[in-house]
Amino acid sequence: MTEKDQEVVVLRLGHRPSRDKRVSTHLLLAARTFGAKNAYYTGTQDPFLEESIRKITADWGGDFTLEYAGGWKNVFADWKGKIVHLTMYGLPYQDVVDDIRSDPSPKLVVVGGAKVPGEVYGAADWNVAVTGQPHSEVSALALFLHELYQGSELKREFSGARLTVVPQANGKKLKTASRRV
Amino acid sequence: MTEKDQEVVVLRLGHRPSRDKRVSTHLLLAARTFGAKNAYYTGTQDPFLEESIRKITADWGGDFTLEYAGGWKNVFADWKGKIVHLTMYGLPYQDVVDDIRSDPSPKLVVVGGAKVPGEVYGAADWNVAVTGQPHSEVSALALFLHELYQGSELKREFSGARLTVVPQANGKKLKTASRRV
Repeated sequence: MTEKDQEVVVLRLGHRPSRDKRVSTHLLLAARTFGAKNAYYTGTQDPFLEESIRKITADWGGDFTLEYAGGWKNVFADWKGKIVHLTMYGLPYQDVVDDIRSDPSPKLVVVGGAKVPGEVYGAADWNVAVTGQPHSEVSALALFLHELYQGSELKREFSGARLTVVPQANGKKLKTASRRV
Repeated sequence: MTEKDQEVVVLRLGHRPSRDKRVSTHLLLAARTFGAKNAYYTGTQDPFLEESIRKITADWGGDFTLEYAGGWKNVFADWKGKIVHLTMYGLPYQDVVDDIRSDPSPKLVVVGGAKVPGEVYGAADWNVAVTGQPHSEVSALALFLHELYQGSELKREFSGARLTVVPQANGKKLKTASRRV
């Protein structure tokens, strides 16, 4: 199953530009790399975050977009599909991911920031844990998407890339298209 | 294969306390959660980073430790085992992980920070990419360890934990041991 068969949109909750800039950037790039179609975020609007994602997508291809959403309640209310909330308090992802994958509707994958309101747990269709240990929303999202897409996301192409890595056993090789095609 | 059969130690390069505090914390927690035995870091020494990892391990169990290492060259020179360098410029991890797993020696898994010196590529036994797309050292490390340990790391126990999550379909449940056992 690929990201074409099951659409994922990521919602990052409670972004704080001063503290979260780099972690939110990493999270959204992981969303892009591992198959999410696009993302929303709540918290404080951050033009630098938006610009950094826009610029990386322009260079590295694909059509991932990031959009600011005032509050999570509106996003939940407007969402046509199911909602997966990633939290260390949820059920082990290896136990529920087959169930999630077999549901063909688009998935909103909600990833907490600082303080996740208790209502989010009740409003989600699944509360899912990538281990019950503290680590990172970045690793949790990547592993969840990797399991959801069963590794097919590693083969995806990012169309219109200006920059492409040429894999090497040693050293760096980057192919640069003269312009975006 | 579990983390008892193949020891992994993580080396985080070039930590900058002002910029990297949260990403390095997430990276080291991912190392701990997904089976690394312990970690070193280079760059600028950061007592807050060390304390935050120490505190989380005290609460959540296991015996993961973090130690400051002045420079990567000393760590490489002292290392008895093989060296895996995670970089988006390397060979796809899905193509080389069987090879790495079948080598029984301990692995130093090197994770770049801001600027990775070119010599690191030459000194590593494997330069390994978790996709050739920009995302995060946190997601790269988690996926690499997950693949190396083939999911067995998800079942590990963290001995002596003061805090343990009790997985729930909805809500949060935390078990607190009265004292570290």
